[in-house]
Amino acid sequence: MAITITAFESSPDRGRGLARDMRVRWALEEVGQPYAVRLLSFAALKQPAHKALQPFGQIPTYEEGDLVLFETGAIVFHIAERYAGLLPADANARSRAIIWMFAALNTVEPPITERSNAVLTERDKPWTAERMPMLEDRIRARLADLSIRLGDAAWLDGDFSAGDLLMVHALQRLNASSPLLDEHPNLEAYITRAEARPAYKRAFAAQLAVWEASTG
Amino acid sequence: MAITITAFESSPDRGRGLARDMRVRWALEEVGQPYAVRLLSFAALKQPAHKALQPFGQIPTYEEGDLVLFETGAIVFHIAERYAGLLPADANARSRAIIWMFAALNTVEPPITERSNAVLTERDKPWTAERMPMLEDRIRARLADLSIRLGDAAWLDGDFSAGDLLMVHALQRLNASSPLLDEHPNLEAYITRAEARPAYKRAFAAQLAVWEASTG
Repeated sequence: MAITITAFESSPDRGRGLARDMRVRWALEEVGQPYAVRLLSFAALKQPAHKALQPFGQIPTYEEGDLVLFETGAIVFHIAERYAGLLPADANARSRAIIWMFAALNTVEPPITERSNAVLTERDKPWTAERMPMLEDRIRARLADLSIRLGDAAWLDGDFSAGDLLMVHALQRLNASSPLLDEHPNLEAYITRAEARPAYKRAFAAQLAVWEASTG
Repeated sequence: MAITITAFESSPDRGRGLARDMRVRWALEEVGQPYAVRLLSFAALKQPAHKALQPFGQIPTYEEGDLVLFETGAIVFHIAERYAGLLPADANARSRAIIWMFAALNTVEPPITERSNAVLTERDKPWTAERMPMLEDRIRARLADLSIRLGDAAWLDGDFSAGDLLMVHALQRLNASSPLLDEHPNLEAYITRAEARPAYKRAFAAQLAVWEASTG
């Protein structure tokens, strides 16, 4: 069944692969499924037609026949369940891989987003200089624990999984605006290893092409 | 196989059911599985023995034979996959229910946590009065969208699911310290409906008993 996802017509990250459609593109490339992309303006995101598909007015969505999904975690999980390549077959190993999907989105990403929000919306406020070390310490605590758990393994639990995919993308969003990852060479190597995957490269090129087309 | 979870020996929420073990207790009650609880002091959370199970030093964990899980999303999902009662059988309906697990933890909960962090750690800072309306507006935007999507349905998509369980718990954490939910009677009714479930009541009583014993 044909798969269609939505993405920004003109991404605020200027093609750096930080928008959340990248997660879905990457997952689809890992499992070898083709997909179409419907591009949306910022105005269209808040219109009833899109909010009927995505109640919070965000991208990406995922359409496959009658099925409409949103939330990158749920979309990536659906792809991982339907097609081989993103979750192990053994039941216990699968449950452990799923840990890292939730850890990426609910434990590692929130303090990164909190810092990004402060950078984006409170940059010129008088309190930001004093708050920033506190926000960075929250991220540091997560990175230190993650770095210890990863150790010198290639991936978080066995083979590359949907958990690694979401974790790498959360870390890339941090890397784009902060040197905090410099403190953990094994996490930097983890990102580099993921970025060397052919599926990652294809997904990255596809989202970059959208940005380049949007700038004429 | 026997299930053991971890919880706070003395919960900072004083037995109000806001700690994250509540999610796992509730899920286990919904599917009718008994479980044992190992209580941990704050000091024990940061010790190597616990961090070998939970790299971020948090509760709850979930042990079942050789399997060790953490992240409430992953634990609740594992329970929902292994036992009937928390996810629909139809594949598309199941994928849609999973949306709400991720929406609860990655879209609705983060701005609630950001506000709670500010209340807990920045209450006496000179900037907090000015920041609070901004933090509340971020929550308001999510609640407004969620309220529209729920409408006058009983649950977010069909029958009660693991997605409702996690969403209700995220909203309860907001309700404990803010009147923001007053603006959406249908969301308040949604929480009340969930709290009336026998499984919820058993889980709530079990965590309250731990708190009461700790103050004995």
